[in-house]
Amino acid sequence: MAVRPLGARGIYSALKAQIGAGVYRPGAALPSTRALAAELGVSRTTVTAAYEQLLSEGFISGRQGARARVAAIPAGPRPEAARDGAGQARPGLSRYGERVAETVLPARPPSSARLVADFRYGDLAAADFPSDIWKRAVTMAARRRPQRLSYDAPAGAQELRQALQAYLWRARSLRCEMDQIVIVNGSQQGLDLCARLLLEPGGSFVIEDPCYGMARQVFAAAGGIAIPVEADQDGLRTDRLAGLAARLAYVTPSHQYPLGGVMPVARRLELLAWARRCSGCVIEDDYDSEYRYDIAPVPPLYALAEGNEIIYLGTVSKALSPTIRLGYLVLPPALAPVFTTAKALADRHAPGLEQHALTILLESGAYERHVRRSRRRNAERRATLLAALSCRLGDRVTVAGADAGLHVVVWFRDIAAAREPDFVALGRVKGIGVYPIGPLYMHADAAARPDMAGLVIGYASVEPQEIERGVAILAELVGAFSTEPPQP
Amino acid sequence: MAVRPLGARGIYSALKAQIGAGVYRPGAALPSTRALAAELGVSRTTVTAAYEQLLSEGFISGRQGARARVAAIPAGPRPEAARDGAGQARPGLSRYGERVAETVLPARPPSSARLVADFRYGDLAAADFPSDIWKRAVTMAARRRPQRLSYDAPAGAQELRQALQAYLWRARSLRCEMDQIVIVNGSQQGLDLCARLLLEPGGSFVIEDPCYGMARQVFAAAGGIAIPVEADQDGLRTDRLAGLAARLAYVTPSHQYPLGGVMPVARRLELLAWARRCSGCVIEDDYDSEYRYDIAPVPPLYALAEGNEIIYLGTVSKALSPTIRLGYLVLPPALAPVFTTAKALADRHAPGLEQHALTILLESGAYERHVRRSRRRNAERRATLLAALSCRLGDRVTVAGADAGLHVVVWFRDIAAAREPDFVALGRVKGIGVYPIGPLYMHADAAARPDMAGLVIGYASVEPQEIERGVAILAELVGAFSTEPPQP
Repeated sequence: MAVRPLGARGIYSALKAQIGAGVYRPGAALPSTRALAAELGVSRTTVTAAYEQLLSEGFISGRQGARARVAAIPAGPRPEAARDGAGQARPGLSRYGERVAETVLPARPPSSARLVADFRYGDLAAADFPSDIWKRAVTMAARRRPQRLSYDAPAGAQELRQALQAYLWRARSLRCEMDQIVIVNGSQQGLDLCARLLLEPGGSFVIEDPCYGMARQVFAAAGGIAIPVEADQDGLRTDRLAGLAARLAYVTPSHQYPLGGVMPVARRLELLAWARRCSGCVIEDDYDSEYRYDIAPVPPLYALAEGNEIIYLGTVSKALSPTIRLGYLVLPPALAPVFTTAKALADRHAPGLEQHALTILLESGAYERHVRRSRRRNAERRATLLAALSCRLGDRVTVAGADAGLHVVVWFRDIAAAREPDFVALGRVKGIGVYPIGPLYMHADAAARPDMAGLVIGYASVEPQEIERGVAILAELVGAFSTEPPQP
Repeated sequence: MAVRPLGARGIYSALKAQIGAGVYRPGAALPSTRALAAELGVSRTTVTAAYEQLLSEGFISGRQGARARVAAIPAGPRPEAARDGAGQARPGLSRYGERVAETVLPARPPSSARLVADFRYGDLAAADFPSDIWKRAVTMAARRRPQRLSYDAPAGAQELRQALQAYLWRARSLRCEMDQIVIVNGSQQGLDLCARLLLEPGGSFVIEDPCYGMARQVFAAAGGIAIPVEADQDGLRTDRLAGLAARLAYVTPSHQYPLGGVMPVARRLELLAWARRCSGCVIEDDYDSEYRYDIAPVPPLYALAEGNEIIYLGTVSKALSPTIRLGYLVLPPALAPVFTTAKALADRHAPGLEQHALTILLESGAYERHVRRSRRRNAERRATLLAALSCRLGDRVTVAGADAGLHVVVWFRDIAAAREPDFVALGRVKGIGVYPIGPLYMHADAAARPDMAGLVIGYASVEPQEIERGVAILAELVGAFSTEPPQP
């Protein structure tokens, strides 16, 4: 086998290693390119290329024509970086960083294929995803050929903002100007931008109790101090707002998460009046408004606002897929410019491909046809779930929040709140993924929280027959827990 | 034409309007469903549906069977929200919000089709985009059918992180573990996460002068105080670091932006030693490392680090398209968990579709084939540009930073720095988009800044013949500016 002569890359690497090992000391001359080429049996061009690379990286110095010399490179022992308690060095964090480091995100145990039914909220059935329609839209979007590829507008593609403006009016009776819309990477980024721009570290924010955990966490990470206000079957108890002041409030008036209440108009007006009194902003997270069963869509809080008090937040996570990271803020006109700049600083803009694919779905009506189809499927799942709960558990359970959305809360009358974690853990062993309501309360002992085990049962990813089998297991579990006295 | 009877929605709207107008006062009974149905000539079910909707929204009250009554709704005049100086009400901003509101992003005049040549840096030619390959990858990615649609891992899809780990080793001699990689929405989000987690408001950061403006702005928006350190033809002048302390430094060692220097190894080691002394972090933005012409790739600073001092930042904006918002951080192991949590709080995770499409490109080798093709095309553009500049402007210009990347800096010996804005403005009138270097300096009067007009000429979106025509116009412009004496 012939030995292949060294290429420029090989010569470069060999010389670098020799310099590193001290074979050539700083200031020492390297062989001339002619000499080295002859020695290695390669062309002089090859050696010159290697030298130029070493030169460009600063390992050697030497102007054209002059002999290359090894550069003066600071050496000596490298001090160890300071190490923290855990034995791992970590550069100092900002106070934001320290708060993030202390944040424990909700555990999301991987959905096991071995579970009979996994009632995890937020998941959707893959079979419901409009694959063909989405693929066509994505292919059409990928086919767009602008003259040049440039960064898009930070607030989002104009076509998408126009399509959303029309959609919001058709579907949500929400009137706004295109300039009020900022496209974000899912509702989470919308919340994060609100937290950063409106909440000063040490400032207060009002949040429903119980609430959507990732919202509470993003405001807390921004340094906000939570003022939990009880939510009941009608959503946030706005009568409790009297005397409170906060720059920001986070609410889910169309379908309180997790309890499921639809906020009545009297509370809506009370909330708006409160916001105006504190010159605060209310974030209306309209996360699942596509899903209504026995009632027509309730217009958003936004539609009642007169000033700048509402920031409306929408998402496609519940209608299409949580992996498509697209959401949108509808902002008071005075806030739109600062949110646009913040979005640009945060990540320039949402990805073009998804923005254009979603535009195609909205403009063609395919989005709304898909939502109607999804609503029918989820209505069927919901009916199966409610029937199974009623049939197998009867009045041992109370079901809340079933008018809308993709989940219900089930309260178990005979099981104490303290036993919730065991109940959930045993459920997993028996083959069902169920999720406790406890962690969604800020104060586990709050008077607001019933002394019963409660579960958030998401049904959007579970097929009707799995729902029936899952509820059968749940019923057995309830039987076991109710007869068995609590451990002392 | 027959009058179509009112549906439930119409009845609901009419009643709501009447309640709003005071036709029915709070506490007043509504007509019974039977009576109203008879009056309107519709079924009782229709009226009941309308009443249920009003009930669910809280406009009326009344349990099953009882007569529906108008709910007590707080009314009265609504106070105006406080209005700020500009006459537009704006809810109070956080200090971060105030800084963002003061941020003026670099102006990006829309690229005009009427320009003979637009040398805007950051844009790519649409013709270079691997449309077919990308479309196939996206289609394959869109075809993935997981069992259920769930949020992905915040750090990014495992397959993509694995593919990047291998790519970084092959292409950049960068060895890291998969767990050190966090996928972000383009390098801008990587910078923003670093700013938030590592920079305390009031803390200092070292930045090259001149520098990439969006980096300086994101650190400044986080409340950081910039310590500009001069960059010369070899990148950051690390000799100027002695005596400075900062938690964070931002550098572009492979190809200093904008001046184009490749940092020699002596400076690299000096920078690392400095970072260890201050227990600081150096962000290495390797934004255009795919593009090398006369020199082989320079290994990243990261490859020389021993501790936790480097955060490596990569992007596909220069290799594929700026509209694909995907980038990646390679973090010190001790920092990876806190960045992962911060990414989850910021927007849960990068979009699934692009992540999977990029994985397919990386795994199949198509990404690197495309990079090689792009490199050849840009080498041709670069050669055309350099030849045209040399032929038409000769020694009236100095060209810097041409070894790598997708732009060069051109200094005009006969034109004073103060005339740069006029020069650029006249260029646009004459049909070329050229961009001044001035705004990239922190101190326009800095000793570092030559007293000559300078332009950042991006060539990646301009075809060779347009380059030639553009440089011809540039040469005329130089002629006009050099003979004409500066206005007093």
